[in-house]
Amino acid sequence: VAARRTSEFERIDRIQQLLDAAPRRQRTNQLEVGIGDDAAVLRLDQRSVWTVDAQVEGVHFDRRWLSLGDIGYRSFQAAVSDVAAMGARPVAALSSLALPASLKPRELEALVRGQAEAANECRCPIIGGNLSKASELSITTTVLGRVKRPLLRSGARPGDELWLVGRVGMARAGLLALMRALRSRKLKPCIVAWRRPRALCSEGQALVGRARAAIDVSDGLAGDAQHLAKASQVRLVFEAARLEASFSPEFALAAAELGVLPIELALSGGEDYALLCSGPSARRPRFARAVGHVERGRGVWLERDGRRKELSGSFDHFSSS
Amino acid sequence: VAARRTSEFERIDRIQQLLDAAPRRQRTNQLEVGIGDDAAVLRLDQRSVWTVDAQVEGVHFDRRWLSLGDIGYRSFQAAVSDVAAMGARPVAALSSLALPASLKPRELEALVRGQAEAANECRCPIIGGNLSKASELSITTTVLGRVKRPLLRSGARPGDELWLVGRVGMARAGLLALMRALRSRKLKPCIVAWRRPRALCSEGQALVGRARAAIDVSDGLAGDAQHLAKASQVRLVFEAARLEASFSPEFALAAAELGVLPIELALSGGEDYALLCSGPSARRPRFARAVGHVERGRGVWLERDGRRKELSGSFDHFSSS
Repeated sequence: VAARRTSEFERIDRIQQLLDAAPRRQRTNQLEVGIGDDAAVLRLDQRSVWTVDAQVEGVHFDRRWLSLGDIGYRSFQAAVSDVAAMGARPVAALSSLALPASLKPRELEALVRGQAEAANECRCPIIGGNLSKASELSITTTVLGRVKRPLLRSGARPGDELWLVGRVGMARAGLLALMRALRSRKLKPCIVAWRRPRALCSEGQALVGRARAAIDVSDGLAGDAQHLAKASQVRLVFEAARLEASFSPEFALAAAELGVLPIELALSGGEDYALLCSGPSARRPRFARAVGHVERGRGVWLERDGRRKELSGSFDHFSSS
Repeated sequence: VAARRTSEFERIDRIQQLLDAAPRRQRTNQLEVGIGDDAAVLRLDQRSVWTVDAQVEGVHFDRRWLSLGDIGYRSFQAAVSDVAAMGARPVAALSSLALPASLKPRELEALVRGQAEAANECRCPIIGGNLSKASELSITTTVLGRVKRPLLRSGARPGDELWLVGRVGMARAGLLALMRALRSRKLKPCIVAWRRPRALCSEGQALVGRARAAIDVSDGLAGDAQHLAKASQVRLVFEAARLEASFSPEFALAAAELGVLPIELALSGGEDYALLCSGPSARRPRFARAVGHVERGRGVWLERDGRRKELSGSFDHFSSS
C-alpha cells in the first residue's frame, strides 16, 4: 500500500510540474487554489458553462493509431469543443485519469503533455483533477467556460441558413487510412486531422449574436444534425451542392485515395469537432459556409438536384438506403 | 451502430427522468441550462470551488458488498466531501458514467437513483454529465461549490488544536465485516457507515471562520493527516486518550467483535468522510472533538502516556512497527 501511494503522489507531483511548465498566459487570474488541495477555487462573476467528457481506451481510441500525446491532446480538445459549441470562452478544466498498472511513467507524461499542449492552445488551464487505478485507460475532462449568451441547440428557426464552421470528414478519412494501413501522402492531412483535432473556440465565441443555434460535430454531421433538429423542432436540409462546394481540394484527393465519396465521409465523420449552426443569412460570418437551410418540419434531409432523402443519425443506414 | 446509439439516448433520457424526479428544492436557481445541451450553464457570482472524483469497480468498490444504489450514493458523497472540506456549499454536479455492456438497464437505474438520493441529501443537483462504454464500471463526479473563505490544507499553525468532525473507523469496520462475512448485529451500523457515508457539508460550512485548516478523511486518518501536516509545514500530534474518548460505544463494540483495536481502525479507516481540522481552542464548535494539537516540526505522531511514535501514511506500516 505504501509503495502504491508514494508512486501515486509522485505521479501527481509530476503532472503538476508538467502543467506548471505551460506558459503563464494560459493561467487564469480567476484561479485562487489549484492542484494540491481538496478542490480548485475559482472566482466567477459571469455566466458559466460547464461540461464533462470521457475518452475510454478501446471505445474512443486505440493505441495502435494514436500516441499517448495524441490521446491526451484530443481528449482535451473534445471536451473543450462542447464549450466552443455554446459560444463560450473556456476558462479552466479538471482532468480525471484512470490508469492501468501497465502504463509506464513516461507514457503518463506523454499523455499529460498532450493535455497540457491542448490546454495551452485553448488558453484553458487544467487546474486540478484526480488519478485512480483502473484496468483500462480513460481520461475524463471537465471544462468550465464563460459566456454572455450561450448558443443552444434549441434556437434554430425556419428560414435560417445552415452553417458549417470548420471541416468535416477529414478525421474520418484519417481513421480509415490508419485502419487500412494506407501511407499515401495525400492522406497525411487527414491523419493529422484525426489525431490532433482542434476545438473551434474563437469561432464559437464569434458566432454569439450571429448564429441562433449551434452544436459541435463529434459523432457525425448527419447524426449531430438530428440533435439540433430535434432540440429546435425544425427540419434541417443539407444542400449537397453547397456542402460539396465547401470541401477542400486536399479532402477530395484523400477521399478519392480511399475510394469513398467525399460527401459520405462528410456526413458520417465527426471527430473533426466542426460546428454546425443556423442563423439568418445576413448575419453569417465569413468563416462559416452555408450548406443548407432550416424549414418547418422534422428530421434531417439531403437535397440534390431538387430531390431529397431523409438522413438517419446512423450513416450506415443512410449509405445503404 | 443505430441500435447502440438509440439505446444510449434512451439511457440519457432515463437518467434525466430520474434526476428530474428529485424534489424541487434540490434544483439550483443558478442553473440556466441543464442536461440536453453541450454544457451546463450556471450563473455564479461568488467564489467557486470545483472538484472531480472517480470511483472505479475493482479499485474503489466491489459489487459483492455494495448494491448499485450504494455505489451511486457513495461515489457522489465522496466527491461532495471534497467540497465540504473546503468549507464550501455544494451547488451542482456533473456525472460521467463509464458503463460495461453487461450492465443492465435496471442496474443503471439503481446506480443513478443512488446518485440522485445523495444529490438530494446534499442539495446539490446533478445538472449534466456524460455516458460512455467501457469494460469496467466507473463513476466520475465533478462538483462545483461556493465559499467566501475556503478552508485550505495549508492553514494549520503551531498552537492550534486538532479537531475531528464526524466518525472515523466505522466504515473500515464495516468493510472488514463484509470481507469476513460476519453478520453480527453489532456490526450493522458499521456496514451502513461504509455503504452510505455522508459528506459533512453543513459542518464544513460552519467551520469557516473557526478552523484554520481542513481536509476530508477519505484515505485514512493517519494518511490524510500527513497531507495537512505537509501542506501546513507543521507537526500534528494525535493524543490517544482524546481520540479514544471520541469513539462511540457502538464503535467500540464493533471493533471488539472484529478483534481489532478501535484506535487502529480509527487511524487506518477513511471512507467515513470525516473532517480533520485545526483551529484555536476557543473557536472549536460543539460538533468538533479535540483529538490532538499542532506543533512546530513535521510529520504525524501518536502520543500516549507521554510517549510518542511517528505515524506513517500507511497504516500497515504503523501497525507492524
